[in-house]
Order: sequence, then structure tokens, then C-alpha cells
Amino acid sequence: MAINRPKGTQDHLPDGSPKLSLDTRASAFAFVRETARRVLERAGAQFTDTPLFEEAELVQRGVGGSTDIVRKEMFTVYYFGDHGGFILRPEGTAGLVRSYLQNGLKQLPAPLKLWTHGPMFRAENVQKGRLRQFHQVDYEVLGSADALVDAEAIALMTEVVQALGVQKVKVKLGSIGDPEDREAYNAYLRGLFTPHLEALSDDSRDRLTRNPMRILDSKSAQDQELMGTLGVRPMLDFLGEGARAHFEQVRGYLDAWGVNYDVDPSIVRGLDYYRRTAWELHHEGVGAKSALGGGGRYDGLAQELGSKETVPGIGWAFGIERLLLALEAEGVQLPATPGPLLYVAALDEVNVGYAASVARQVRTLARAEFAYRAMKPAAAFRDAERRGARFVALIGSQEVGQGTLSLKDLQTGEQHTVVTRDLQSFLGAQQSSTSPSMQEQP
Amino acid sequence: MAINRPKGTQDHLPDGSPKLSLDTRASAFAFVRETARRVLERAGAQFTDTPLFEEAELVQRGVGGSTDIVRKEMFTVYYFGDHGGFILRPEGTAGLVRSYLQNGLKQLPAPLKLWTHGPMFRAENVQKGRLRQFHQVDYEVLGSADALVDAEAIALMTEVVQALGVQKVKVKLGSIGDPEDREAYNAYLRGLFTPHLEALSDDSRDRLTRNPMRILDSKSAQDQELMGTLGVRPMLDFLGEGARAHFEQVRGYLDAWGVNYDVDPSIVRGLDYYRRTAWELHHEGVGAKSALGGGGRYDGLAQELGSKETVPGIGWAFGIERLLLALEAEGVQLPATPGPLLYVAALDEVNVGYAASVARQVRTLARAEFAYRAMKPAAAFRDAERRGARFVALIGSQEVGQGTLSLKDLQTGEQHTVVTRDLQSFLGAQQSSTSPSMQEQP
Repeated sequence: MAINRPKGTQDHLPDGSPKLSLDTRASAFAFVRETARRVLERAGAQFTDTPLFEEAELVQRGVGGSTDIVRKEMFTVYYFGDHGGFILRPEGTAGLVRSYLQNGLKQLPAPLKLWTHGPMFRAENVQKGRLRQFHQVDYEVLGSADALVDAEAIALMTEVVQALGVQKVKVKLGSIGDPEDREAYNAYLRGLFTPHLEALSDDSRDRLTRNPMRILDSKSAQDQELMGTLGVRPMLDFLGEGARAHFEQVRGYLDAWGVNYDVDPSIVRGLDYYRRTAWELHHEGVGAKSALGGGGRYDGLAQELGSKETVPGIGWAFGIERLLLALEAEGVQLPATPGPLLYVAALDEVNVGYAASVARQVRTLARAEFAYRAMKPAAAFRDAERRGARFVALIGSQEVGQGTLSLKDLQTGEQHTVVTRDLQSFLGAQQSSTSPSMQEQP
Repeated sequence: MAINRPKGTQDHLPDGSPKLSLDTRASAFAFVRETARRVLERAGAQFTDTPLFEEAELVQRGVGGSTDIVRKEMFTVYYFGDHGGFILRPEGTAGLVRSYLQNGLKQLPAPLKLWTHGPMFRAENVQKGRLRQFHQVDYEVLGSADALVDAEAIALMTEVVQALGVQKVKVKLGSIGDPEDREAYNAYLRGLFTPHLEALSDDSRDRLTRNPMRILDSKSAQDQELMGTLGVRPMLDFLGEGARAHFEQVRGYLDAWGVNYDVDPSIVRGLDYYRRTAWELHHEGVGAKSALGGGGRYDGLAQELGSKETVPGIGWAFGIERLLLALEAEGVQLPATPGPLLYVAALDEVNVGYAASVARQVRTLARAEFAYRAMKPAAAFRDAERRGARFVALIGSQEVGQGTLSLKDLQTGEQHTVVTRDLQSFLGAQQSSTSPSMQEQP
């Protein structure tokens, strides 16, 4: 019986595969990664990578033991003789901050801008845009609490998305203040909800004692109705002086740079280590829950993970699959992969090896393919066209004997006779006179 | 308490990190991946990706239930409500062939050349060059049994390694024949060893009934001694006519292309789906067990995984960490990452945002960085030099008022005064006249 891939995972397939969608196309993932690389590395970010699994405790502390991710959606990893289990990483920040601390990266010039991309794992209910193995691009800046770092991070997130050709995105920007501001806000919420305990859902009654702000995230219709009736004031009203000045500074930079954002006073974060700036990036094409990703400042995270010193930090991540759905919704065309510069076929079995050698020599310069079996001319041209080749050479014993090749340019229809040992310089000249989209990256 | 990464895993770190070795340097992994991409994609291979975990059954059938990998080294993955467990992939071939079958990739032109890279997982005893999460580059060709495909695969493996600058590599090439050849060889081995049962290790007595060829892989001193005494004939002596002709064809192509190999008559493979060509790539700098990787033809694998039709296939993989140890052993220098083209610092707090805007504009062209706080000139130059910047601009209120910049070229020491709105065209001209190693890839 055939074995299938696990539910909630996808293969990333070559162009031309049957039933290909943008979020199963390997070249689409490559396009997102390379675009992110260009934008982020020009801003001075350095690529870094962490293991796919981490200590369970890291994920519990970094993501929060009371979140749905940790309570319901973790993939646990064991091996023979294991000490108690690892977790497949559900997000990138905790591992990256762990790596910063463990590897002494505070010795590098601050702020240190890092980026990564790769698979993340959450055992969610499978639905459109929600996979169990999904992929993120992740940007983190460590070692600075300056508002300019926040503004640059937000701007870079939109710039990556725009460089991909996605237009209809908007940042929803908020601030969750400093710890004392959140304490004041939680006190306000306790005062507001306590007289209405009977109208709250069971979950939210529990939240009211532990972390009242999480009531605002409740999806229960009962809670939603109560909140509508009570007219809950937003977190943003409770910012202290420092957090408010920081928020205005961030907005000032974004305004100056023309970054498209709306202030969203309702943005909250459930975990204690978050500070001040928090945002989501939304797209109208990705369905009801339209966030492509989000970000925030997390100055308390390093200490949560065991650091003796405070390490201010901020970061964002977006889901590549969700972004590809947005690209698809906007009808963005990905850049086409150029075909081979040369395709060589032998007309009889005895010359197949010679044809292969001719093609192989060209590979120091560009993509070149050959037929593994002798082919009739018509079939060879069909195969060359299907592969998107620019030049075709058919090789018979005459060509081998004379040391020449007859090349047909499939773009112009022209025929060229080339001495075989001059093939590279001929093709090199042709390639440099070709339109840039045909050219391979060095 | 600080939380560390799991034993047997590594972080891949930015250049300049403390205690950096080649196999923990993120840019070294990128260099290997990009070099493999160039060589393999010029040969017409397409990138593809499969999930990091697969059904346990796929791994058991694809890698072999009796191998050490499956018996002792598997990472098992569970989630809440799981159906029985997945496996973190220990190698790339089984998933890739599964994907080929499940996604109908036989509709693509054959032979289909695919490549991938990424993390693999084996819970081995940790030692130099043996990690629990390690990384491979993997090349697979499906849909052709031609010897030319085998020769090209072997040549490409050596070409990737040579393109990285590693010189002291050699292919050890063998053939394990067709199934009937292996049956004949197993019959020979049974006849040879059965009279010496008492001299064999316990494990090998077991192998003698199940799969005598695996005795040849035994590391037991007792078995080694017996084999030395008996003078075991190699598998290669037992090739049938078809497998022998195929082997000679492969050798013919490799000879014609100048690929460096030795025939190694002792190469064996334990699993039934292997056919004919098998090889290892060795390097003298990687320690006692010097294989960087290996490859082989596996025409029986697709059927083992549930395909009704035969799908001929061949592939290879090498470990990136082991290759990086080889690079280190040969003292190969990686290409240096160029620094920013421009570094901008404001001389007073009020102009920090202006300095950031100046740098940000240049990023459509090249890497440009800015200081997040006001700096004194000496400190700004120090920071710019540490980052490897080419041009430095210091911004005071005079520069802002006049709309000009004074740029210092740290390469030549020259000073340039540039109108701020002409900065991009000035730097663009400078960049194109710069040495190629300073230029960013498009």
C-alpha cells in the first residue's frame, strides 16, 4: 500500500508538477526566501539558524505554558534513552534568543540584527493556511531598546512583503506598555468584569484571576457580547509616560518613511515578557483571520530564559504559506525560471556520450542539458522546447568527425555553425547579449 | 537557570561570533548550499522539499527495519491525539521518492533530476562529525536506468565538492549487481562461513541466516580476523552479464570525463532494493571513517514504498558538517561577506532619524547601515571599520541644512562631497567600478 505524507504537511514541488499551487511550489518558497534575504541583508541582518527541536522547558518559558500552542499543539520528540522529551519548535524567537545567550553573541556590535527562515511545527486543526509543518521568515534585533529599532523592524517587514509584489497589506500597530502599565490595565479590567462574573465564559472567569488581558482575546460569543455592552477601554489608554513617548517616536519614524499603518488600540499580548511595541501585518486576501504575521518587543524574554542581564529585543515573523496565499489572491506572477542555455541530443546511440560531454562543458558557464538516449530530430526539438532551451544542437557522426556543431536558436530561429571547441565562447557572447531575465544569477 | 540547546545539535552563527568554527558558521552552510545549487541546477536539477517528519512505516521500509538507524537512532514524534507516531527523517531519499509517487511526478520529463538540502536526524552517540541534527545535500534522479545517469550523478557529486575548493577527495566505486547476482553471492558466503560458525560473532551468526552480505560490514575483530583468513571474494566477482556491462559503461564515462575514482570491490549494501552502481566519496581529512557521503542506484525502492510500477532511481547525499570539516582540514578560505557600501552616523541626537533615512534610501541598491544613537566622529569611524563599510558619512546639522554629505572612502582614504539627493547615483557608479568580490549578488 502506498504511504502518504503526514496530515497537515506539504511537499514543495518542481515547476511543471501536476496540480501545483503557489504554496506547494518549491520555486515560490525560494522566491520568498531570496527576496527576504536581499531586503534584510541590505539592512545589515545576518542569517542564523537554530535546531529544529529544543528542550521542552525552553518552549514552555518562551511561548508560555498557558497558551494553546503549548497546551494543545506541541509536537513532542523522543529517542531511545531520552531524558524526557524535546519539542519541535513552534516559532523561532525562543531558540534564537537562547542561541544569542548560549553563544555569547552580545560580544557582537549592538544592536545585532539576525534573521532566519525555516519550518515550524504546531499540531493545529488542519485548514486553509494552517499547516502542522509551516514555514516562517523571522527577523530579530537584540541589544537595543531604541524606538528607531522598532520602526526599522516594522518598515522592513512591509518592505519584504512589498518586494514580493504584494500590495494590499497594512500594519496594525499598538503598544502594550511597560509592566506597570499592564498592571494598571489589569486592575481596571478586574474592576470592570468582576461585577459581571455570571456573564463571562468559564474560561474567562479563570482568566480574570490569572491574566485579565487575555479575556480580550476570547472568541466566546458570550464574552464578546459582554465586552460590547461594557465598552472596554483599550490598553493604549493606560500607557505610562515612557511607553507613550516611545510609541510616538515609532509613529514619527513610520510617518517620515511613508510606512502604511493604522493604530490598533486593541492589540494585546498575553505574556509578561512583552513590552511596548506590538503589531500585526494584515492582508485582505487571506480570509477571516487575515494576519500574515506579527511582531513585538520582548525586553523581558532573555531573563525568562535564564539570562542574568536584561537583553532588550524585538522581532517579527510571517508565515510563508500565508504570504503565498496573499500573492495568489493578488494574482502576482513569480519570475519564471529560465530554461537551459543549451540542449544537446545525439541522433544515434554511439554518440550519446559525446553529446553529454558537449553539454557538460557548457555547465561551467550556464545550465545545459542533454538527452540520455539517441533521439530523432523532431522528438529532440520537442523535448528542448518543453524544457525551455535557448539553443539546440543535434549530434550525428558527421558533427563528431568534423568537430563542429550546428546550433539552432529557438528564440530567433537562426542557425549557427560553431567549431565545437569554441562553443563556450560562442554561448558566453550570446548569453551576455540576452535579456536579463534569461540570465542566471552568478 | 539557563537553558541550552539539545545535545548533538548546533547553532549556525553569524560571522564574527565568539568561538566560531567552520561547522557552526551560518555563512559556511550558505556557501555549501549555494555552490551545490549552482552546480546541480546548471545540470538541470530542480529543488524540491519534503516534510521533516514522515510516517514511521515509510522510514522502516525506506531505510530498512533491521538497520541500526531504525533500530536505535530514530527520533519519534508525537502530538496530542496522535495516531501512533511519526519519525524525524534520518535521510532524504525515502521522503523524496514518496513525494515523487504521491504527487504524480512521473508526468514530468524523464529522467527527473531533483535535489534538496536540509536537516536530518539520528540519535547517534555524539562525536566529531556525528551530530543528532545534521545537514545534507541530496541529489536524486528518477525514471531512468541508463548508465549515463549513474556516471553523471557521480561526476556531479565530485564537482560540487571540488567547486567548494576541496581537493583531496576520491570516489570509491563498486557494483552490487542485480538481485540474482546478490543471491549467488549470498549463497557463496553461506557456503564459505557455515563451516566456521563458531569463529563468527553472535551478530554475524544471525546475519548468516538473514543477510550474509551484512557480515562484510561487521566491525567485530573476531569477524574481521575470520574474513582475513578465509580470503572472501568480493561482490564484484559475482556480477551477471547485465550488471557487468552497466558497470563498464559507468566507468567508461567517468574515464572520459576525468573523474577521479578507484574501483572498490568490497562495497556492499544491506537492503534489497539497491541495484548495481554504489559508491562512497572519501576525504583523507575527515578522520578514520573518512566518507563524506555516498550514493547508489535503488531501482527497487519505489515498489518497496507501495508503487505498483518500477521506478528506476539513483541518488547521493553528503553531510554538510563532514564536508566543512574537510574544508577546514584543507585550509580552504570561504569567500568573505562584503561589508556595507555605506555607513551613516549622526553627530547629535536630533539628526539620528535623518541619518537613518539617508541609509535606508541606499538599500534599494546595496547594503547600508546607520547608527541608532548619536556618535562622536572617532567612535563612528571605529564602528564603520568594524562592520567593514566602504563609505562613511557623518551627519551634523550643517549637512542636513545644506542637503549635502561628506563621504569618506575607507578603501582609498578619499573625501567626496555629494548632494544628498544624488547619493544613490554616486554610490551606484562607485559600486560598479569596485572589485567583483565587493559586489553584492543581484
